Amino acid sequence: MKHAKPLPGYLVQRYEGWRATTYSENQAWYRRLANEGQRPRAMVISCCDSRVHVTSIFGADQGEFFIHRNVANLVPPYEPDGDHHGTSATVEYAVTALKVSHLIILGHSSCGGVQGCLHMCNGTAPELEETTSFVGRWMDILRPGYAQVDAMNLPTETEQLRALEKKAVLVSLENLMTFPFVAKAVEEGELSLHGLWTDIGEGSLEYYAPEDDSFKPV
Amino acid sequence: MKHAKPLPGYLVQRYEGWRATTYSENQAWYRRLANEGQRPRAMVISCCDSRVHVTSIFGADQGEFFIHRNVANLVPPYEPDGDHHGTSATVEYAVTALKVSHLIILGHSSCGGVQGCLHMCNGTAPELEETTSFVGRWMDILRPGYAQVDAMNLPTETEQLRALEKKAVLVSLENLMTFPFVAKAVEEGELSLHGLWTDIGEGSLEYYAPEDDSFKPV
Amino acid sequence: MKHAKPLPGYLVQRYEGWRATTYSENQAWYRRLANEGQRPRAMVISCCDSRVHVTSIFGADQGEFFIHRNVANLVPPYEPDGDHHGTSATVEYAVTALKVSHLIILGHSSCGGVQGCLHMCNGTAPELEETTSFVGRWMDILRPGYAQVDAMNLPTETEQLRALEKKAVLVSLENLMTFPFVAKAVEEGELSLHGLWTDIGEGSLEYYAPEDDSFKPV
Amino acid sequence: MKHAKPLPGYLVQRYEGWRATTYSENQAWYRRLANEGQRPRAMVISCCDSRVHVTSIFGADQGEFFIHRNVANLVPPYEPDGDHHGTSATVEYAVTALKVSHLIILGHSSCGGVQGCLHMCNGTAPELEETTSFVGRWMDILRPGYAQVDAMNLPTETEQLRALEKKAVLVSLENLMTFPFVAKAVEEGELSLHGLWTDIGEGSLEYYAPEDDSFKPV
Repeated sequence: MKHAKPLPGYLVQRYEGWRATTYSENQAWYRRLANEGQRPRAMVISCCDSRVHVTSIFGADQGEFFIHRNVANLVPPYEPDGDHHGTSATVEYAVTALKVSHLIILGHSSCGGVQGCLHMCNGTAPELEETTSFVGRWMDILRPGYAQVDAMNLPTETEQLRALEKKAVLVSLENLMTFPFVAKAVEEGELSLHGLWTDIGEGSLEYYAPEDDSFKPV
Repeated sequence: MKHAKPLPGYLVQRYEGWRATTYSENQAWYRRLANEGQRPRAMVISCCDSRVHVTSIFGADQGEFFIHRNVANLVPPYEPDGDHHGTSATVEYAVTALKVSHLIILGHSSCGGVQGCLHMCNGTAPELEETTSFVGRWMDILRPGYAQVDAMNLPTETEQLRALEKKAVLVSLENLMTFPFVAKAVEEGELSLHGLWTDIGEGSLEYYAPEDDSFKPV
Repeated sequence: MKHAKPLPGYLVQRYEGWRATTYSENQAWYRRLANEGQRPRAMVISCCDSRVHVTSIFGADQGEFFIHRNVANLVPPYEPDGDHHGTSATVEYAVTALKVSHLIILGHSSCGGVQGCLHMCNGTAPELEETTSFVGRWMDILRPGYAQVDAMNLPTETEQLRALEKKAVLVSLENLMTFPFVAKAVEEGELSLHGLWTDIGEGSLEYYAPEDDSFKPV
Repeated sequence: MKHAKPLPGYLVQRYEGWRATTYSENQAWYRRLANEGQRPRAMVISCCDSRVHVTSIFGADQGEFFIHRNVANLVPPYEPDGDHHGTSATVEYAVTALKVSHLIILGHSSCGGVQGCLHMCNGTAPELEETTSFVGRWMDILRPGYAQVDAMNLPTETEQLRALEKKAVLVSLENLMTFPFVAKAVEEGELSLHGLWTDIGEGSLEYYAPEDDSFKPV
C-alpha cells in the first residue's frame, strides 16, 4: 500500500497533548478497558457529519457508547442475503454480543444526506438515481419516508427537509424492529429504542414520543 | 413506531449540562456551522468500539472531522451494483462532495470484529460462517488479510490478532484505492491516505510506513 | 527598492525543510485553503513579542486563527476619521468579512510595551512622551488603564506591571465594544469576546471572569 | 467588561496538551526567556490571514521572531504626527529597542486585503472608499502600488492581484526606508531588509531581487 502518508504534524502534536493529559490521567481505566473488554451501556447511530458530536453532547467518556456513524444515520431493513451489510453488522454486534441496554438513533438539522434524498425523490438530482451513486442507493432506504413527507404538502424546502430528517429517524427505528434479535430484546425488556433529533445551530434536542407521534423537547 | 422510549434521565441531565456550558460557550460557531455548512479537513474511519475516542485523541471539536464508524474500521472494495453500501456512501460523500484532504483509517487493539474474523477463518467460530451472520459476512472483507496473517505462522493468538488488526487497516486502504474517485483524488494530490493503529490500554499510536511496509510510532 | 537582500541561508534551509515535510504532508489541505478561501473560527490579538506563540499554545494549524499582533496586544477605541488604523482594519475584516465566532485578546507577562507605558506614565521614561515616539503614542491607548492601576497603590513594580498587563487586556476588550459592528455581533450572539493572559516563564494561562472582575486559571 | 466569556473548552484542552508536552519539555528555556528578556534575531511583518504560518514555514520556536501581523502586511510611511500608529510602533520597538538584524516583509497569494484594494481602486468596491471603512483607509497605503500595477495592463484579475500582492511588499519596504531609524540601521549595516512572497496553495517562496527588480524563488 504505497500511497499511505505519515500523520500530519498538527495531529501528531495534538495526539501527544492528549497522551500527556487525558490518557495519563485515565491510564488505569483505559488499561482495564483493554484487559476486560468494553461494556457499553448504549449504542448510538448518528450521522458522519462533522458537526454532530455525540460524545460531547452526552458528556460520554471512553467505554460508554458503542457508536456507528453513517450517512444520514440510517438503518436498512433486515436482509440476511449474505452480502456485506455494515450497518446491520454493527447492530447485530451491539445487541447480541455486547447486549447494550439502549439503542439511540440521532438525527440532525441541515443533513446533507437527507437533502440529497429529497432532491433525488423530487426529481432535482437525477445523478443520485444512477446505479453507480453510492449515496443515492444508500438513501433509497429513506424513499418510503419521502412518500409520507411528500403527502404532507409542506410549503418550503426547509420544512420538507426537517420533516424528512425526523422521518429518517423513524424509518430507522422501524427497520430496527425487523431484525429478529432486536425485536426479541425489545420485547423481553432488555433493550429500549430511542429516536432523537438535534438542531446543530440551536443546540436543541428532541425525542420521538409515540403517544403523540411527534418529536418533543427532551 | 410505538416502541420508542424517552431518553434515559442520565443522558437528559448530561445533555442539559452540555447545553449550559459547551453549547453556550460556542453558540456563535455552532450557528455559523449550521448556516454555512461543514468543511471538515479530514475523514476518519474508525471502529464502533466504545473504547476508541477519535475526537478526544486528536483534540478535535465540532466541524473538524467527518467520521464513519463501523465494525473493525473496514472499507469494502468498489462494488457499484445498486445495493445499499453504507461505507461506500460515506467515502463517496466525503471525497466527492466535501472534498476532504485527508482520509484516515484508524484501527485499534482488542478489536472484537477482527477477533471474530480470526476465529471464523481458523474454524473456531463456525456460527460466523452462516449466511445470516451480518458480522461474519461483514468480516468477509478481511478474509484476504487473514490468509496473509496465517502464512506468517505467528505463535500466539495475541500476535495473530494484532497482525490482523493492522492488516485490516491495510486492506481498507487498498480497497479505498479501488474507488475511481479516491484513486483520482490521490493521484491529483487532492487527498492523502493514512493508516493508523492505536493500543487502547497503552494509549500509543502507530502509522503505516510504506517504505518499511510496517507500522511505526507516530 | 535597492536595499532588499536575499533571505539569510538559515531561513532558506528551514523553509526547504518545511516544504519537504509539513507542506508535502498537507499539500491537499493547503491547496484547498488557497482555492476555497480561509474560514477561521477565531481571531486572536496578541503581542509581537517573540516569546508568545499563539499557534503553538493552542495546537492550531493553518486556517484556524486570524491573527493580529501588535505592541502590547492593544485595540484603540473606534475612530472613523479616515486615517490609517491598522488594528481597527484587522478587527473590521475579521468580524464583518470573515465573521469569526471568537475574538481573543491574549496578554502576557514581561511585556516590554506595557512596561514602557508604566515608565512613561510614572515619569521615568520622558522620551516616550515625545510626539515622535511611535511606541509612546501607541501606548497612550493604555493611559486610562494606568490611572486605575496607579490607584491600587501596588508596592512593587513587578506587581504594577502585571496589573497593567491584565488591564491592557480589559481596555482592549472595552475598546472593542465601541466598534458598532463588534457590539452588534456580540449582542446578536454571533461573536464572543475572551480576555486571556499568559505567564511566559510558567506556561500558565488565565482568563478574565466578569463575575469576579478578575483573572482566573483556565 | 461584562461581555467576556471563558475560553471555549476545545482550546482549554489543547492548551493543557501543550502545557504537558511542549511547555514541559522547554520549561528551562521559557523561564530563561522570561527572566532575561527576548532577543529575537528577526522581525517579520506578515498578513493576519489564517493560512499564513510564519513560525511553521521557518521552523521558528519561541524567542526567534518578533512578529507583527496586519491586513496585507503593509507598512505606512513615516508620519510622526502624534496619532496611534500601531505598525510604526512595532517597527520602532523592533529596530531601536530590540535591534533585530533582519526585517522581513512576507506577502502571500489570495490576499483578501490586496483584493479589496484592487476592487476599491478599479471602482468595483465603492464601499471601501468610505471614510468609515477601516479596511479601505488602511489599503490607501497601497494606492501608489495600484497605479503602477494598473499601468502594466495585465489581462486577468488573477495576474493583477498577484502583481499587487508583490507590489505591497515593495511599497512596505520603501516605506520602511522613510523611517529615520530604519534607514540609519540599514546604512550602518546593522539591519537588512527582505521582501518575500509565498504561494499558499503551492508552498512556494519568492524573494525580491533588486538587481532584476523582480521576485525569484529562494
